[in-house]
Amino acid sequence: MPRPIILDCDPGHDDAISLILALSAAELEVLAVTTSAGNQTPDKTLNNALRVLTLLGRHDIPVAGGAPKPLARELIIADNVHGESGLDGPKLPDPAFAPVKQTAIELMAEKVRACEQAVTLVPTGPLTNIALFLAAHPELHHKIDSIVLMGGAAGIGNWTPAAEFNIFVDPEAADMVFKSGVPIVMCGLDVTHQAQIMDEDIERFRAIDNPAAQCVAELLDFFMIYHRDPKWGFSGAPLHDPCTIAWLLKPELFTAIDCWVGIETQGEYTQGMTVVDRYQLTGKPHTAKVLFEIDREGFVGFIASQLKEYSKAR
Amino acid sequence: MPRPIILDCDPGHDDAISLILALSAAELEVLAVTTSAGNQTPDKTLNNALRVLTLLGRHDIPVAGGAPKPLARELIIADNVHGESGLDGPKLPDPAFAPVKQTAIELMAEKVRACEQAVTLVPTGPLTNIALFLAAHPELHHKIDSIVLMGGAAGIGNWTPAAEFNIFVDPEAADMVFKSGVPIVMCGLDVTHQAQIMDEDIERFRAIDNPAAQCVAELLDFFMIYHRDPKWGFSGAPLHDPCTIAWLLKPELFTAIDCWVGIETQGEYTQGMTVVDRYQLTGKPHTAKVLFEIDREGFVGFIASQLKEYSKAR
Amino acid sequence: MPRPIILDCDPGHDDAISLILALSAAELEVLAVTTSAGNQTPDKTLNNALRVLTLLGRHDIPVAGGAPKPLARELIIADNVHGESGLDGPKLPDPAFAPVKQTAIELMAEKVRACEQAVTLVPTGPLTNIALFLAAHPELHHKIDSIVLMGGAAGIGNWTPAAEFNIFVDPEAADMVFKSGVPIVMCGLDVTHQAQIMDEDIERFRAIDNPAAQCVAELLDFFMIYHRDPKWGFSGAPLHDPCTIAWLLKPELFTAIDCWVGIETQGEYTQGMTVVDRYQLTGKPHTAKVLFEIDREGFVGFIASQLKEYSKAR
Amino acid sequence: MPRPIILDCDPGHDDAISLILALSAAELEVLAVTTSAGNQTPDKTLNNALRVLTLLGRHDIPVAGGAPKPLARELIIADNVHGESGLDGPKLPDPAFAPVKQTAIELMAEKVRACEQAVTLVPTGPLTNIALFLAAHPELHHKIDSIVLMGGAAGIGNWTPAAEFNIFVDPEAADMVFKSGVPIVMCGLDVTHQAQIMDEDIERFRAIDNPAAQCVAELLDFFMIYHRDPKWGFSGAPLHDPCTIAWLLKPELFTAIDCWVGIETQGEYTQGMTVVDRYQLTGKPHTAKVLFEIDREGFVGFIASQLKEYSKAR
Ligand SMILES: [Ca+2]
Ligand SMILES: [Ca+2]
Ligand SMILES: [Ca+2]
Ligand SMILES: [Ca+2]
Repeated sequence: MPRPIILDCDPGHDDAISLILALSAAELEVLAVTTSAGNQTPDKTLNNALRVLTLLGRHDIPVAGGAPKPLARELIIADNVHGESGLDGPKLPDPAFAPVKQTAIELMAEKVRACEQAVTLVPTGPLTNIALFLAAHPELHHKIDSIVLMGGAAGIGNWTPAAEFNIFVDPEAADMVFKSGVPIVMCGLDVTHQAQIMDEDIERFRAIDNPAAQCVAELLDFFMIYHRDPKWGFSGAPLHDPCTIAWLLKPELFTAIDCWVGIETQGEYTQGMTVVDRYQLTGKPHTAKVLFEIDREGFVGFIASQLKEYSKAR
Repeated sequence: MPRPIILDCDPGHDDAISLILALSAAELEVLAVTTSAGNQTPDKTLNNALRVLTLLGRHDIPVAGGAPKPLARELIIADNVHGESGLDGPKLPDPAFAPVKQTAIELMAEKVRACEQAVTLVPTGPLTNIALFLAAHPELHHKIDSIVLMGGAAGIGNWTPAAEFNIFVDPEAADMVFKSGVPIVMCGLDVTHQAQIMDEDIERFRAIDNPAAQCVAELLDFFMIYHRDPKWGFSGAPLHDPCTIAWLLKPELFTAIDCWVGIETQGEYTQGMTVVDRYQLTGKPHTAKVLFEIDREGFVGFIASQLKEYSKAR
Repeated sequence: MPRPIILDCDPGHDDAISLILALSAAELEVLAVTTSAGNQTPDKTLNNALRVLTLLGRHDIPVAGGAPKPLARELIIADNVHGESGLDGPKLPDPAFAPVKQTAIELMAEKVRACEQAVTLVPTGPLTNIALFLAAHPELHHKIDSIVLMGGAAGIGNWTPAAEFNIFVDPEAADMVFKSGVPIVMCGLDVTHQAQIMDEDIERFRAIDNPAAQCVAELLDFFMIYHRDPKWGFSGAPLHDPCTIAWLLKPELFTAIDCWVGIETQGEYTQGMTVVDRYQLTGKPHTAKVLFEIDREGFVGFIASQLKEYSKAR
Repeated sequence: MPRPIILDCDPGHDDAISLILALSAAELEVLAVTTSAGNQTPDKTLNNALRVLTLLGRHDIPVAGGAPKPLARELIIADNVHGESGLDGPKLPDPAFAPVKQTAIELMAEKVRACEQAVTLVPTGPLTNIALFLAAHPELHHKIDSIVLMGGAAGIGNWTPAAEFNIFVDPEAADMVFKSGVPIVMCGLDVTHQAQIMDEDIERFRAIDNPAAQCVAELLDFFMIYHRDPKWGFSGAPLHDPCTIAWLLKPELFTAIDCWVGIETQGEYTQGMTVVDRYQLTGKPHTAKVLFEIDREGFVGFIASQLKEYSKAR
């Protein structure tokens, strides 16, 4: 029986790849895709999710747009990374189907309520929708297996010196999620900055002859541009969001430590920071499993392997 | 055509009186009652709402319980004011009916969506449910006439030196509500501390021969106890929540000033403060109509008059 | 034996009047005048102190300039209130003497150390110098009688909705002062907004035939301009700083309550607020005597009486 | 001509070693030693400085005690690391001389004013004294060469998940120092956690036959105890404070990056954090040279070499 998941994303290049990987795996059943405002405005991230699903011919997946902005702040977008469409680079088809009539929170509630198994939520954008869903539906917490999220870091930032983008965009939402008591796996920059895709990896993906793999290669071509700035000290592009899917399918690629993680919502310079108590200095109980290391070669191999699934007859 | 309202409350003595007044008025149509955690734990405030409606024979009003705790904080209750049940004092019947199956947010959404007119939300507890409803349903904002709330103050506090109880319990929710763009009327301590009910007023209500009025008198008997502490400098008990209903039905009793109001969520000593820009020092646009003065005699007369409605045949 | 005081000020119209009143009184001995950055830049407030003392012929008073800016923030000035010189309006002589070679903190330390009695500090600007003096000289705390300061308020602001100017300019300094354990008398906006000088009061001062009184009248002519804005609801101009001298000489004009007062340094909207626990909600011990009411007529009479002292032969 | 320095320390085992190293070097002239409250209470850190100097026979160095507590907070001490005396382990002589009559700030001011060269300040405890000195003596900033401090980190903490001890104890002081405009070299945990002393290094020092080296070995024996906790993942003990002296004498042992560094004073979980903009995300100008890497072998060799100086005839 496949593991039921709901993807809440803000595509976004790495979200799109994450979606492609999730839908390649027989071990996962994607109950719904919901979209958050983040890498681009909510209309664009919703449209991008529909375009990717159209490319994959997965009109069967219900899609719903979520909250148009963070809980208590104005929306910040990452068009410097993801371009004007939020998914610049590859040619993608126009959406061949429409979102459902429900809001993202309503769709999540319906799917979680109806599912016989506990559902895993996989957010790869700001946590606005997840926070609202958890707060509005305490009666469904017991039906949530865990939240496997891309966000945060233990001590570095990529948007401010202290904060990673997804958490920085909506710290209040992240705070609610990390205080919810639902089990959390945090794929933060510590691990995603190790999950770098090199030029030769892209060519390896491009050599896989199916539209999904071609799309991934073209997404990565564009995604590389921002990350070539020498200030980062990167050799490739850190493939943040797909680490969540890799964790679900190949946890052996990672090392993880259970830690207390708090979300800073109040600092002058540190808002949106995930404060990770790696050395057990606070005495507080663990609130998340934090991923610290990844087998990069294994990760690239995993992606290639999943992309080959799309060459098989369905 | 009566004005459609939804009461979101945490009964609570003054909430109960507010409910009794709202249901006495032909000018108002109570579409639903939802309950928040605040004066007491969520199970008790829900039960109290059902008990008051049972007393009034209004089993027709749908009731739903809301979020069990504030968005990002542990629940603080005011049992020092409202007693162990949250409604200590009068003998109330056990609930003769059950809440609906929906959550508070689902019930609000259904009623607002279905109503032909724009609906007025009347929260008299912490703003947790209202914040979640607004954030989860941006598509319904245009169907909300306004939010007439009890909470906050311009420069005083009743729970901390800077904060009023309802806002202090869930500042993040209040922040979301005040930033929502939905028109707000704020009945804060400035006006509710003037809305004092004296011993002779209670006797005036007790002289009205119907169960609703008797209940109000007994609620006030208990509510007086906390407020007799000389530190407050009160002559009577400030009847906070019913000011919202008085504003809806008799706005001429009040003076109001349009102000920018911000919610402090970050201070060391000021969390939960409603920062009211009465002197236009910030240059920011108005976000609320703030009530500053009330005609106390007129307010007491209004209550007496509404309570007499319950003596009429229905 | 007169009461020894040190005036730490940022003249500023009301500081200048405060200085004039302090030097009129045989009951007070002004050991030194130090200047803070606040109403104007530090060079201007120092120069203004020298100009006022030159007008009064008091070259014997040692004057020292203090910290050029707040402890941890950029300087904010109030040139909208006090004009380009910080003392616009009257014609004042150029300084006929120079400041001492010491810094303000060194001068305070020398005078407090040398004085046989405990000294009262009277700051009427931002508390930067006082904070540094207290922190750098714990060994002299026992030689400080008290700090009688103009600053703060219980629930209103004049620079932001929550903060009074003197405290807002340097909240960290104010925090250090209020935590120092030295007895504090706080003349805040609650009382200084009652200490309004009307047009007829100015004429009463102008009728006193000596240069000090003429100067006060002319200072008030200018000071009136800012305060005529109807948004304040003032009939006259609130004469903030001289309330400190009135308290020292005529405490019977005031009502005061001992309260815990905390300084908010961390809020989003409330930085620089003096949080006054008037209703004993925190359970914390008193940290200041807060003035709440003033006999305005008595205050005006006090000023007139002191100004007449300058008509006497010296 | 030796480089004139003032050591402001809270001995503390690593402070004591820092002192021993500084006084071993002909290239440095220690103008004064001042003590801060930190690793232990101010009376103990002062006494410890005197004891170390007595051991070394350096009664000629003027010593002054500084502020008894942080600027705006209660003192936190690290007796779990440094023991009841603050310098548990070795037998040290009682002080053979007394501190000067001046305060730490007065002594610093005198020495900096009198010195023909610009002076380097070397704080290895909380920055309380340095902040007060800088704020009280803006006229001497041009006489300060730089501040070479042990404190902070780029993304880790040793006292809270986000903060290093020295900065955490007095964040307001650190904020003032980092905003002062005086050049700063920051030896933080990034580098000091690499500066680990192993058991074999201690034996290497013990083999140097003079009292200073013996004392260092015994100090390290005790200092090891706290750092053996496996949670740290250390092989030895990180020798924080002596990195400052190593930087002064052997900067080639380090790699450093100029960064903007801000001090978080306001967060819920991040107070006392040094926020280091390593990736130039803020666009703010550099405020410190941050040390990121150290040649550990070279560092140990440097210590050994300096300790041998004490075997030479003086
Ligand atoms: Ca994403
Ligand atoms: Ca209520
Ligand atoms: Ca002033
Ligand atoms: Ca130290």
